[in-house]
Amino acid sequence: MLHDIAPRTGAAFTVDKGQRLTVIDPQGGQVADLLAFNRSDMAEVLSSGRTLDYASRIYLTTGDPLYSNRSNVMLRIVEDMVGRHDFLLTPCSADTFRILYGDDQPHRGCFGNLAAALEPYGVTPDAIPVAFNCFMNVPVNGETGTFTVEPPLSRAGDHIVFEAEQDLVIGLTACSAPLSNGGSFKPIAYRID
Amino acid sequence: MLHDIAPRTGAAFTVDKGQRLTVIDPQGGQVADLLAFNRSDMAEVLSSGRTLDYASRIYLTTGDPLYSNRSNVMLRIVEDMVGRHDFLLTPCSADTFRILYGDDQPHRGCFGNLAAALEPYGVTPDAIPVAFNCFMNVPVNGETGTFTVEPPLSRAGDHIVFEAEQDLVIGLTACSAPLSNGGSFKPIAYRID
Repeated sequence: MLHDIAPRTGAAFTVDKGQRLTVIDPQGGQVADLLAFNRSDMAEVLSSGRTLDYASRIYLTTGDPLYSNRSNVMLRIVEDMVGRHDFLLTPCSADTFRILYGDDQPHRGCFGNLAAALEPYGVTPDAIPVAFNCFMNVPVNGETGTFTVEPPLSRAGDHIVFEAEQDLVIGLTACSAPLSNGGSFKPIAYRID
Repeated sequence: MLHDIAPRTGAAFTVDKGQRLTVIDPQGGQVADLLAFNRSDMAEVLSSGRTLDYASRIYLTTGDPLYSNRSNVMLRIVEDMVGRHDFLLTPCSADTFRILYGDDQPHRGCFGNLAAALEPYGVTPDAIPVAFNCFMNVPVNGETGTFTVEPPLSRAGDHIVFEAEQDLVIGLTACSAPLSNGGSFKPIAYRID
């Protein structure tokens, strides 16, 4: 069964250990911010720092595990049609739009959408860390350290598949930041098998 | 007054808004992991994701602000003799030494040292995020995304100076990971003015 996430919104749901979560970009060129919490102890959460450290790589793809702040594997990427995702940047937020875009009345962004969707699971906004940003294309210049946010490389129907290695609560968005999505806002779809 | 942090240990202390924290590498080639918490609400903490996002750069130096998870500036780098620090990787931990070094009886690392030093301030281990790793030299290959941990570029006596923009609790270490420090363990010194 395919679930839809409307443009600039988010969702939260559970995925059991051993299940597979497929995140699909139905129209192409759209980013989905993904968070994971250990359902039996919600203080255990996805950690970009642990994951990148153990991978010795900032771009992750098929075969790579995503670690928690307690160095346990939460998810593993088992299929990846795109090969470029971001794990450096926090979910876009009202502050992002204020600071980076100069918006006076900023959208609540993926951060606000994740906070609202995860609130019933007891997650407070302060507990939202760097997300695994599916399809987000952030090439880094290794010499200068500068990076840019480029349109995603995903084409219509491309997907990435994660296998859960814990019972999880997942937060997932159709990203709200114009720059991340090549200037457009599109939906995201997901499936749990 | 100069304070010393012995090799492979850590410290926690307060810094008031407007004060300057100078982190010194007395012998050269040594890393110091730095954390900051808002003293009036310890759930506000240094955020690599927010900071890198707003800087559009992974290497930070003089003039760059360090943001919290609430997008407030906590510290600003006001002087930097080295110009290469890391803000991608979590503090080294027993898990780091187990996973990356294959140690059977691993040292508790900067993570354990920070957790112990910050415990009197009510900080739990789960609340320790990616640290700003002063002098840590992690060049990234922008094409492949791979990175390596190289010896720091700091020479004996080099320092970096931060100005506090909030009343803070600071955690600071003399890093415990062989790879980060060119295979040796040395002290770190700091001063508050």
